[in-house]
Amino acid sequence: MQDKCLNEENINQNIVRMQYAVRGPIVQRAAELEQQLQGPEGQSLPFKSIVRCNIGDCHATGQMPITFLRQVCAGLVSKETCEANLPADVKLRIDRILASCPGCSVGSYSASTGVEVIRRDIAAFLTERDGISCDFNNIFLSSGASEAIKLVLSLMSTGGEGAGKAGFMVPIPQYPLYSASVAELNAFQMSYYLDESTHWGLQLSELERAYDEAKTLCIPKAIVVINPGNPTGQILSKDDMKMVIKFARKRKLVILSDEVYQFNIYQPDKHPWSSFKSVLMEMGPGYADVQELVSFMSASKGYMGECGFRGGFAELVNIDPKVQAQLYKCLTAKLCPTVVGQAMIGTVCNPPKPNEPSYELFMKEKNQVLSDLANKAKLTSETLNSLPGISCNPVTGAMYAFPRINLPEKAIQAAKSQGMEPDFMYCLELLNTKGICVVPGSGFGQIPGTYHFRITILPPVELMQTVMKDIKQFHHDFMQKYS
Amino acid sequence: MQDKCLNEENINQNIVRMQYAVRGPIVQRAAELEQQLQGPEGQSLPFKSIVRCNIGDCHATGQMPITFLRQVCAGLVSKETCEANLPADVKLRIDRILASCPGCSVGSYSASTGVEVIRRDIAAFLTERDGISCDFNNIFLSSGASEAIKLVLSLMSTGGEGAGKAGFMVPIPQYPLYSASVAELNAFQMSYYLDESTHWGLQLSELERAYDEAKTLCIPKAIVVINPGNPTGQILSKDDMKMVIKFARKRKLVILSDEVYQFNIYQPDKHPWSSFKSVLMEMGPGYADVQELVSFMSASKGYMGECGFRGGFAELVNIDPKVQAQLYKCLTAKLCPTVVGQAMIGTVCNPPKPNEPSYELFMKEKNQVLSDLANKAKLTSETLNSLPGISCNPVTGAMYAFPRINLPEKAIQAAKSQGMEPDFMYCLELLNTKGICVVPGSGFGQIPGTYHFRITILPPVELMQTVMKDIKQFHHDFMQKYS
Repeated sequence: MQDKCLNEENINQNIVRMQYAVRGPIVQRAAELEQQLQGPEGQSLPFKSIVRCNIGDCHATGQMPITFLRQVCAGLVSKETCEANLPADVKLRIDRILASCPGCSVGSYSASTGVEVIRRDIAAFLTERDGISCDFNNIFLSSGASEAIKLVLSLMSTGGEGAGKAGFMVPIPQYPLYSASVAELNAFQMSYYLDESTHWGLQLSELERAYDEAKTLCIPKAIVVINPGNPTGQILSKDDMKMVIKFARKRKLVILSDEVYQFNIYQPDKHPWSSFKSVLMEMGPGYADVQELVSFMSASKGYMGECGFRGGFAELVNIDPKVQAQLYKCLTAKLCPTVVGQAMIGTVCNPPKPNEPSYELFMKEKNQVLSDLANKAKLTSETLNSLPGISCNPVTGAMYAFPRINLPEKAIQAAKSQGMEPDFMYCLELLNTKGICVVPGSGFGQIPGTYHFRITILPPVELMQTVMKDIKQFHHDFMQKYS
Repeated sequence: MQDKCLNEENINQNIVRMQYAVRGPIVQRAAELEQQLQGPEGQSLPFKSIVRCNIGDCHATGQMPITFLRQVCAGLVSKETCEANLPADVKLRIDRILASCPGCSVGSYSASTGVEVIRRDIAAFLTERDGISCDFNNIFLSSGASEAIKLVLSLMSTGGEGAGKAGFMVPIPQYPLYSASVAELNAFQMSYYLDESTHWGLQLSELERAYDEAKTLCIPKAIVVINPGNPTGQILSKDDMKMVIKFARKRKLVILSDEVYQFNIYQPDKHPWSSFKSVLMEMGPGYADVQELVSFMSASKGYMGECGFRGGFAELVNIDPKVQAQLYKCLTAKLCPTVVGQAMIGTVCNPPKPNEPSYELFMKEKNQVLSDLANKAKLTSETLNSLPGISCNPVTGAMYAFPRINLPEKAIQAAKSQGMEPDFMYCLELLNTKGICVVPGSGFGQIPGTYHFRITILPPVELMQTVMKDIKQFHHDFMQKYS
């Protein structure tokens, strides 16, 4: 091994340090079990298949694609192959997008910021959503929201060491893309806790504590807010959002608003969703005209769940034009995001109108997915709450429940004696006995001494019912085993 | 402006420093002119359209997509829409790939390293290409080759300052992705010059000079080789490749082999192409079993030119398994490359076989593109060589000519008095008078005091003939103006 140029000690240590729990060791174990299920070994396993509730991967667990979106993308790839079977509104969108692609081909590079008509369609969508005019020049496309998020974090990273590191306020629990990117960029994570007792709400005192404790350890740059929450499934109230904006303004922090679940709203009357931009604009001069905000959106979630297409975008609000120019320059070396992926998120933002031929089917498919999700959200939190030793906030948004498990002391000791986090052991046993793959709370962060797991609400209704039954039984057995 | 959190001074200075000439100021000027051409202003311009010879963007300049590749990708996106029009071998590939996607949907995330059957198809292609067995576990997919290249450079970057920076040997002239990535990663560029007088060949003495001069200024990590060459259009001889391998072995450098133009070989008898892996394996024990190599491939070039699909892959050879595991872990936070893009490069590696229904059309389309390119390669270098004050190596590979212009002293002074690089001024005047967009040699690097530009050979044959005529006239006028 000493003959090798590269070894674990001399490569980029930020990469060695980074972790991404959503695809971490539990998921690798699930893959091993899936392999075993295919062979003779599989017969001795106490389940027939693995249910992947670890990742917001909608189609993987049986959700069907939305016909309209797929027709547009297929036609962009090979119009002559599918033309005969395409409704007029689909063809219209295909021709419009192709006309904006160099050489009328999705095989050409687009501008690094994205195909112009797609950026314009997104701007029109945001204008309508917020009732505030949106300039397409402030939008750039990306390969999923993840790429845009990493890029913006990188733009703000100073490259310093110690107290010279860029500091990013990240909610805990958080989506581990943030902690992974902060590690990879050698930045500083300023963690603030969400309040589980108030439906994962925000407290000003907690933001201030987190800021004050970390402000001499780094150069604070931005505050990340995930709304609807991942892994927590809550929706921020307007008051909480205003509080964040005032806090960010006072502390001179950019707001990074991860809004990829903005279509996943399950109790719109009781828990409506607002974009950060709309709330910011409501606050008027002194905020609306100065507070820097970057919001992120994706085709991977919502009702479409087209993760594999890697379509995403970011909107820049109040960013210094010179900074924006540097960001856009940095995009050029990446050439461009996948054009088909761009078309996917662009078409999500330009859906069929009521007078168009695809409207009826589109709405039927969309509403079916969203009402199923709302039912599964209810089923999941209600079932979990019915179990002794588990408490779960209602899932009012996004695609996950993040229940708290009050583990018996004996379980905690058993885990520690095996060098595992207690919630990791819980999830591992759930996987090994029931074939259900969920992610331990330790991968997202939690108040020390509390234990959680994240479970997606994505499997089809019937399967989700079975999953809940299995978890019920597993939990009962687990608690008995360690009582 | 002082009210802003982010300004040019406090953002990531590596991003401020990075440049990517292929989409730099000349190209921005071309975009302005394109805008003007659409308005009344356009009538006063001395040309009717802009010919973009600045970027290897095949379809943008009229190259047609390969039917088979597009059929497979369209069918993956919406099988029911196109099924009726698809040949059996296309359907076979669609079903095979879908069966390897979670939930049989390209809308699911794939494994972070890529869809398993696609990795296997690529491995089979490499096995056949090199006559050496290839393990699919050593292949990972990426969003174009660029993403894989940046990731591997990042993996090797130490994050140190001064002499602690990672050093990467980069050929000059080079494709500016390398210099841009080195800047962004705050690494150290160890430049070695290609020898223009021997058809952009390699000299051991030059590799040693470059290494020795820089070895105390950084921690040398890897040597980048671009073969076929970009922007230089040459093909490395096997002897040169063996020399690089011996040099890398002695100096303990990883070899990064950019082989994205491996299908663009225009004089296969005189200038055949070999993969670095095949040459390395030929060299036997002491090399084949130890020398670390990463090679890169893309669907964006070759005969297919599907840039917008962002399909690429890397093969890892002799990499320490622990290092490979860290690299793959890092991929997980990116979730996965675009699945349709993966399918594109996967299908390139699994083309129709002689007994399959799509074979004939596929070969016809492929051979047409390649023979056109070979003709345009010849036309370009011959025309350029016929001009007094220009010399151009033959284009035996890739998609570019990189002619040297011997600029008159008066032109050099005129450029300098305007604060421009002389070759930049040459390219700007070519754009302003003829509407032809090429990239100045200074964007790729060149021996100080020499001047070049990079021109693609991609526009259709007839247009390429006009381009050559226009350049001839422009060059004549330019030389007169500054004589």
